[in-house]
Amino acid sequence: MPFSPAPADKFTFGLWTVGHRGRDPFGAPVRPPLDPRTTLEHLAAIGAYGVNLHDNDLVPPDATPAERDRIVRTFRQGLTDTGLVVPMATTDLFSDPVFRDGAFTSHDAAVRGYALQKTMRAMDLGVELGATIYVFWGGREGAEVDAARNPIDAIKRFRDAIDFLCEYALDQQYALRFALEAKPNEPRGDLYFPTTSSYLALIGTLAHPDMVGVNPEVAHEHMSGFNVYHVVAQAIEAGKLFHIDLNDQKFARFDQDLRFGSESLKTLFFLVKLLEESGYSGPRHFDAHPYRTEHADGVWDFARGCMRTYLILKDKARQFREDRAIQALLAELRDDGRDGPPAGYSSAAARLLKAQTFDRAALTSKELAYERLDQLVVELLLGVRP
Amino acid sequence: MPFSPAPADKFTFGLWTVGHRGRDPFGAPVRPPLDPRTTLEHLAAIGAYGVNLHDNDLVPPDATPAERDRIVRTFRQGLTDTGLVVPMATTDLFSDPVFRDGAFTSHDAAVRGYALQKTMRAMDLGVELGATIYVFWGGREGAEVDAARNPIDAIKRFRDAIDFLCEYALDQQYALRFALEAKPNEPRGDLYFPTTSSYLALIGTLAHPDMVGVNPEVAHEHMSGFNVYHVVAQAIEAGKLFHIDLNDQKFARFDQDLRFGSESLKTLFFLVKLLEESGYSGPRHFDAHPYRTEHADGVWDFARGCMRTYLILKDKARQFREDRAIQALLAELRDDGRDGPPAGYSSAAARLLKAQTFDRAALTSKELAYERLDQLVVELLLGVRP
Amino acid sequence: MPFSPAPADKFTFGLWTVGHRGRDPFGAPVRPPLDPRTTLEHLAAIGAYGVNLHDNDLVPPDATPAERDRIVRTFRQGLTDTGLVVPMATTDLFSDPVFRDGAFTSHDAAVRGYALQKTMRAMDLGVELGATIYVFWGGREGAEVDAARNPIDAIKRFRDAIDFLCEYALDQQYALRFALEAKPNEPRGDLYFPTTSSYLALIGTLAHPDMVGVNPEVAHEHMSGFNVYHVVAQAIEAGKLFHIDLNDQKFARFDQDLRFGSESLKTLFFLVKLLEESGYSGPRHFDAHPYRTEHADGVWDFARGCMRTYLILKDKARQFREDRAIQALLAELRDDGRDGPPAGYSSAAARLLKAQTFDRAALTSKELAYERLDQLVVELLLGVRP
Amino acid sequence: MPFSPAPADKFTFGLWTVGHRGRDPFGAPVRPPLDPRTTLEHLAAIGAYGVNLHDNDLVPPDATPAERDRIVRTFRQGLTDTGLVVPMATTDLFSDPVFRDGAFTSHDAAVRGYALQKTMRAMDLGVELGATIYVFWGGREGAEVDAARNPIDAIKRFRDAIDFLCEYALDQQYALRFALEAKPNEPRGDLYFPTTSSYLALIGTLAHPDMVGVNPEVAHEHMSGFNVYHVVAQAIEAGKLFHIDLNDQKFARFDQDLRFGSESLKTLFFLVKLLEESGYSGPRHFDAHPYRTEHADGVWDFARGCMRTYLILKDKARQFREDRAIQALLAELRDDGRDGPPAGYSSAAARLLKAQTFDRAALTSKELAYERLDQLVVELLLGVRP
Repeated sequence: MPFSPAPADKFTFGLWTVGHRGRDPFGAPVRPPLDPRTTLEHLAAIGAYGVNLHDNDLVPPDATPAERDRIVRTFRQGLTDTGLVVPMATTDLFSDPVFRDGAFTSHDAAVRGYALQKTMRAMDLGVELGATIYVFWGGREGAEVDAARNPIDAIKRFRDAIDFLCEYALDQQYALRFALEAKPNEPRGDLYFPTTSSYLALIGTLAHPDMVGVNPEVAHEHMSGFNVYHVVAQAIEAGKLFHIDLNDQKFARFDQDLRFGSESLKTLFFLVKLLEESGYSGPRHFDAHPYRTEHADGVWDFARGCMRTYLILKDKARQFREDRAIQALLAELRDDGRDGPPAGYSSAAARLLKAQTFDRAALTSKELAYERLDQLVVELLLGVRP
Repeated sequence: MPFSPAPADKFTFGLWTVGHRGRDPFGAPVRPPLDPRTTLEHLAAIGAYGVNLHDNDLVPPDATPAERDRIVRTFRQGLTDTGLVVPMATTDLFSDPVFRDGAFTSHDAAVRGYALQKTMRAMDLGVELGATIYVFWGGREGAEVDAARNPIDAIKRFRDAIDFLCEYALDQQYALRFALEAKPNEPRGDLYFPTTSSYLALIGTLAHPDMVGVNPEVAHEHMSGFNVYHVVAQAIEAGKLFHIDLNDQKFARFDQDLRFGSESLKTLFFLVKLLEESGYSGPRHFDAHPYRTEHADGVWDFARGCMRTYLILKDKARQFREDRAIQALLAELRDDGRDGPPAGYSSAAARLLKAQTFDRAALTSKELAYERLDQLVVELLLGVRP
Repeated sequence: MPFSPAPADKFTFGLWTVGHRGRDPFGAPVRPPLDPRTTLEHLAAIGAYGVNLHDNDLVPPDATPAERDRIVRTFRQGLTDTGLVVPMATTDLFSDPVFRDGAFTSHDAAVRGYALQKTMRAMDLGVELGATIYVFWGGREGAEVDAARNPIDAIKRFRDAIDFLCEYALDQQYALRFALEAKPNEPRGDLYFPTTSSYLALIGTLAHPDMVGVNPEVAHEHMSGFNVYHVVAQAIEAGKLFHIDLNDQKFARFDQDLRFGSESLKTLFFLVKLLEESGYSGPRHFDAHPYRTEHADGVWDFARGCMRTYLILKDKARQFREDRAIQALLAELRDDGRDGPPAGYSSAAARLLKAQTFDRAALTSKELAYERLDQLVVELLLGVRP
Repeated sequence: MPFSPAPADKFTFGLWTVGHRGRDPFGAPVRPPLDPRTTLEHLAAIGAYGVNLHDNDLVPPDATPAERDRIVRTFRQGLTDTGLVVPMATTDLFSDPVFRDGAFTSHDAAVRGYALQKTMRAMDLGVELGATIYVFWGGREGAEVDAARNPIDAIKRFRDAIDFLCEYALDQQYALRFALEAKPNEPRGDLYFPTTSSYLALIGTLAHPDMVGVNPEVAHEHMSGFNVYHVVAQAIEAGKLFHIDLNDQKFARFDQDLRFGSESLKTLFFLVKLLEESGYSGPRHFDAHPYRTEHADGVWDFARGCMRTYLILKDKARQFREDRAIQALLAELRDDGRDGPPAGYSSAAARLLKAQTFDRAALTSKELAYERLDQLVVELLLGVRP
């Protein structure tokens, strides 16, 4: 059957995604809790590759060490039984009221200390489960009241935390890479690192920049109205795409976390094409949740839909490469570099270029058949290309 | 008279700002052209420090060398006569149809070559006029049709151009620093570097990162719904605030370029406070334009308003520092670092921190009187604090 | 003390606003429940006029009739003791999972029936407490999946519900007026009546249009990037401003429900000015909630701040009317109607107008000193006008 | 050949759409002017039904009566020769600087008079060319400076203008229906009627409400982040969809006027389905323009693309109706009205409903397989349903 996912596709879900109970700011949960074992079985049955988790998705914050070990043992058994892996783990630094004004960026040194402690323990847990990617989403690292904290202090504190945790990982000889995940706002009025590139910019200033990359999320970039295909391209070009959160979202509104491909078919086509053609070999993680209208069974419809749409778009990327009309238009756009800038700088080359005569009218007269090209893409997406 | 600007305040305007003729996508110009000499006299009369320009604001693209020299001579005389300076210059790489699909990122090598040539010449012009900051705004470096260009290619081409031009500046022994200016969209559907941090991220990958910083613009960040105070703070923390474009704008809409402080009083208060307290010593450049309803005289009302509101907000920053109630609340937020994370990483410190017991309830019980603090700021802004 | 609220100012709060516990999509509650009696005492102490409520803010959904009566009796005693009134009541048709796909617009006839029943009972409760305004916010009347419901059906069902409930109010001889409250999205992907004017348009098609008006909310209109001053003006012009929800919010993001006047000082100045000058005599209801960082005591800082900022802006409106420079500019804008259109249509008048010669250049040359005017308003707001 | 448009499809274009020269706020025109005769020939050749126009698209504002008559005669000949019709006409009340602060809502009575005169003459022109729909887009009816005009005055002036022009149409026995077109902002900071429903609300207050309906535009509603399918549904439900402007646009940004279906495939599928299934028989007008990168020939690629995508989506609507899996899911959603509200109000029915016992748990347990349904729609759109 076409578009059937298999582990080789590297599709992953968070425990918190299929386990989302449909609670929202205006309503109570609608779905019963989903125990991790059941989740593993369902995910394996539908062709997923792995499952990701926050520490508290698996282990309650107040579990005793014995309880924690029992829970982890059971979960590891579930992994073995189902063949699923845990490629990524992360820390919940946002639910507990203790983090209400930030974790790594809190004014309160003890809160910052606790956040580091909680993360170290969660890194231990992640590594124990086999994770090689560790995500940081600073859901409370932001502000509503700018009088209360200098954002420069926030950046410094955040850097200190990441530097500390890189050292910890090195010290423990953990084969972990860190992936920083941005979001513009919600739950805070404004988050300090609002977009993937804010983290790309930070990484260059870290003590261990090589260990740290980004985890762009479609919905989070859509909240700012950005072209997520461009955002992920910058991360790839910088060698920093360590993980990706796939979902969907309308622009300029609350965090919708919709099923992958349920809204933005064209943008996500280019994103899938980019992931498939750029050599990205990491997980394709779906960080979305089912509609609140959905019942327990529908959760798996949701998960299947994410994967199927990815595979359909991946196949469209193949069609794009094989479509003669599209490729002919693209060939016309490639130039031979004639009259172009020199490959590298030299005084002589600069002098030559400065003295060159350009026929602006001729340059302007070259046709760019972008309406035709874009229409071919639309028709390819709609499945009506011959 | 209070709030009267003086050159020491370092207020600058672009020739294109006060010279904006009120043309928009739906209407013809409403104001006559403003010749540079008149502009200089008016700006000097109202207390500005300097004036900035695109190459073509002063010299038409098709001027002969002789015409160019005459224009420049006259303009320099104007600077001498009025005492104004030209701290910043930039290139118009967006008006001419030759750049309709990009300048540095164009598919057409000859267009890229022409863009470099035009920029080298414009750098010569800027340096001749005394500029030490050179701004790059890539108004056409973007796309509507993502099928037509891989954004990774666009990034590489843009980097090549900046690297080339850094070499050119070094080669010419120009004391120029480059400031990259981002915008999310308009006139292109999506621009490749949509926010200041996209450029901060790029800078680390350049051949001469030390020469290159950013030029954040209030309106451009507001278009994406960002907190511009946070955005500029990240640039400052990275040592990369080389220039700033001050104006105003409602979120999530077309580029309004409104008079500084005409919309976002609270955010811009924090921005002015940050600029004044961070040691930023560069120009305070107003990149805005008068309403299309305005006549020729109103242009100077517009310019005066930008400067006055800046000075009023600067004075509010002083009041903030002197307000006892506000400072008392801030003092409560500062902690003594007790129970906090260690200053630097060591295995021993990590072990200790991991074993520490945190009283989450106690940490949560600390009061954060942010409603009170924010209300004091609002009342300070509204001028009703005692 | 200036800007101290008194009952005559008609400031009201919802039980759910000061009682908001700080829960959000990513975090648990941070504040303890607030019992209604304590709320009444605090609100009376700080100068509020009244309190509004959803049925379930006071009476749990599963209360027995006896419990219900006891709760209501106690609450009425509280009202008597504190002198507070209940001008407005409403129904919670969004929290219960039974409404997960709509209340009045649900596909399920029994859900629609239950929603009507719940509303009739809540109307009884509201009237018993003295309410004369009944608000409808259809938080679940929307969709993520447009395939599932024709929006035309949704509109018809919603109309049927309002018509039914108007009849019920008339039948019971309740002196109630209905106020419909719009919101663009959240918690649903899209709500069927996204803005106040969607409801204004609906009202004309109801069986009892005179009984029904609107309840615009600042934050909800800001979510769509609208000028709420314009939105409320249309409601007033139509004679349909029956209630108003005052709060604040940045544009184009999640529902922030911030303290009134904490963000949009200029727009809210015009809104307050409009309310005060238009003859609107209804409650000034604050539908906001304290930051999640706030403790129990801060709730009352929040509530005081809402009222104080309203009173400060009201005083600014007085200053605006008395400011000679502002009034002189406004006087210039008023024309004498010369060369204007005829007062009413007649064939002769139309013929005359059609033949008239207009001097477009002369009409264009009239100065509109809007930069100057707007700057005066900004300075008035900042408290630096002489 | 499938998806080939024919006049029976009623596709229309504005002279200003295919004639758009690619000018934008940052750049000069890129395409030569297109004369009306050539436009007619091209549109006829590609299967369009008709062409729409502003008065000044055809007749320059300063044409003498003789010039005007010659131009009109030539154009009518072109219509006859090509078989195209002019179903809609409108007035340019935004380009001329005389309208810089509004046309019907200007402070200047003479400007209001001139706007009426210009519209009466443009109505004469439209009727002479056969138009039966007359569109009003008030591009300058808005404000940046709210101090300058009370929006209530603006609404009253706008109403007066429409009432006057209705009388004029009746007086002239013109078989014209008016269609009001909303937009939230651009070129003005805020327009007074920001969304289609603002006009729906106004219409009920006009002297001749039956003559007046709306002209929703996809891009204009997307600028506010609205679901245009819902917006058009409300217009249809109110019997007020008199015309429609089809194009495309990303949310919350400048007015892009993109080729129909180039961005929002899912939303526009539902819109096309609604238009085709609701009995709407008016023109399908494309109010978009080619990319600025496009050359003269590409204009017709653009126009063909708009029509083809409409026809493809129309065919998808047929598939939707015939898709058994989709229809089976929809059938499950339809209820039999059991336990539902009474058809109309009666005291007895209300009493009965109020006393009814609802099993909330049972009502909540009904499955709503919306993830499955939506995924089927996505796959249908992507052309991979069997």
